[in-house]
Amino acid sequence: MTTEMLGPAALAQEVVASFEETADPRLKEILHSLTRHLHDFVGEVGLTFEEWETAIDFLTRTGHKCDDVRQEFILLSDVLGVSMLVETLNGIETPDATDSTVLGPFHMVDSPTRVLGANISPSSVGRTCVVHGTVRDEQGQAVPHAVVDVWQADAHGFYDVQQPDTKPQGDGRGLFTADEHGRFYFQSIVPAHYPIPTDGPVGELLSATGRHAYRPAHIHFIVAAPGFRELITHIFVNDSEYLDCDAVFAVKQSLIRDFVPRAAGTANPCGVKEPFVEAQIDISLHKEGGDES
Amino acid sequence: MTTEMLGPAALAQEVVASFEETADPRLKEILHSLTRHLHDFVGEVGLTFEEWETAIDFLTRTGHKCDDVRQEFILLSDVLGVSMLVETLNGIETPDATDSTVLGPFHMVDSPTRVLGANISPSSVGRTCVVHGTVRDEQGQAVPHAVVDVWQADAHGFYDVQQPDTKPQGDGRGLFTADEHGRFYFQSIVPAHYPIPTDGPVGELLSATGRHAYRPAHIHFIVAAPGFRELITHIFVNDSEYLDCDAVFAVKQSLIRDFVPRAAGTANPCGVKEPFVEAQIDISLHKEGGDES
Repeated sequence: MTTEMLGPAALAQEVVASFEETADPRLKEILHSLTRHLHDFVGEVGLTFEEWETAIDFLTRTGHKCDDVRQEFILLSDVLGVSMLVETLNGIETPDATDSTVLGPFHMVDSPTRVLGANISPSSVGRTCVVHGTVRDEQGQAVPHAVVDVWQADAHGFYDVQQPDTKPQGDGRGLFTADEHGRFYFQSIVPAHYPIPTDGPVGELLSATGRHAYRPAHIHFIVAAPGFRELITHIFVNDSEYLDCDAVFAVKQSLIRDFVPRAAGTANPCGVKEPFVEAQIDISLHKEGGDES
Repeated sequence: MTTEMLGPAALAQEVVASFEETADPRLKEILHSLTRHLHDFVGEVGLTFEEWETAIDFLTRTGHKCDDVRQEFILLSDVLGVSMLVETLNGIETPDATDSTVLGPFHMVDSPTRVLGANISPSSVGRTCVVHGTVRDEQGQAVPHAVVDVWQADAHGFYDVQQPDTKPQGDGRGLFTADEHGRFYFQSIVPAHYPIPTDGPVGELLSATGRHAYRPAHIHFIVAAPGFRELITHIFVNDSEYLDCDAVFAVKQSLIRDFVPRAAGTANPCGVKEPFVEAQIDISLHKEGGDES
């Protein structure tokens, strides 16, 4: 069939039909839906040729901005709320399991393996913080030896990979194995709120739309244990700015935790002597194959 | 507002609201529509986290494949029918003006300026072809001195930029100025049908969906003259394969032209002595600001 007498609707139908021989039924389903919605969008706004050229250029520059330590397409997905939508569609919300939230664009490098109690931010200056918690199942039973991957920005709002010249890779990151009682604990500094990187196409988009680039202060966690659904989440700092207007739409009230100042000498599992801020971050994992309601 | 109690619909609404301060009303309109259709697509298929990761990787690699002579995002737009949709939405279909079609991904380099009658493919081997025509307005009046930019694949289906090691850049391309009677004419070789480049992510997509990559044989034209709407089009070779199943959905019946074999010695404006194939390609331009019905 040629497009001779095709209007936009018939053209979309022709493209959908071109995917008829797709072997994988799921891929076919996705491409059929993508084609229809993409054509509906372009048709609805009556995209001009110049706007299409702008879009091609924007996507190309977004791709060129991506490298080993920068993921501009994840950033784009984030600011369009798509990352949070995927998270919402796939997250299992149960009364007792810890809520998940977006992965974000900075889980680009492996976190260094550290022993419980270690300082994950030895090259960063800031308010000393002791984070501790227990990994449990939804019935409150400890999950021994869970793997706890954490990463965070420093007190100026930068991740290690954003400051390769002044900070060793791995600062602000740690890969821990909880003890036999599911306990994990580490020393760090209180992270700051920060702007997502704005020196690329996504920054241009935020600027052109009058949007700020800030995320409230948070620590990322991925918690995994055999038999449980892997949990990707953040814990947000209770007194941070931007909790009500996260640039990537990822705040859940249940993930905001108190960060409580403690005097010098207060007992803590990391053996910190000076004044510190304490955050108790207990994690509840959802049993794989359990009730998904 | 946090996303605490937000379902997918409310999340989309929150993202739409985030663009409220966009100064340019057209940009706001496009982003509102994009957000809604993108979220509808992701929600409709229930995109999984792994599928989202695959999409991020696909887009990243598509960006990385783009360089000065390769435009993988245009290719992606082409095989999804988006380029042809934009063309359809913006093209002015009048009974008398030549139809437009997609730009395609190979107009990456400037065509060399050539004099009327020149051979645009001196470094290529194939069936000699003489192309000639007149640029007119919709009332049939000649448009003098129109600028005619042409580019085409060779007899093996390759553009110059695809064979930088064996062919000088500019082979298969020419930038002409029609004479005072609107006439243009040049020598070339008959182009072949060809596959769009399949050594990138778009090729993977075609392979995974059982789609062929072929385009019917054609010559690209951009024709411009003051006071007229610039025409971007192709002329398709009448006996080419794939006229009924162009990989980029760009064939219009009105753009298929006869390529007629002529014996040695047949009169022609290029002074070709050997046997050749003759294609008369008259062009009618739409007057800017004229009747757009």
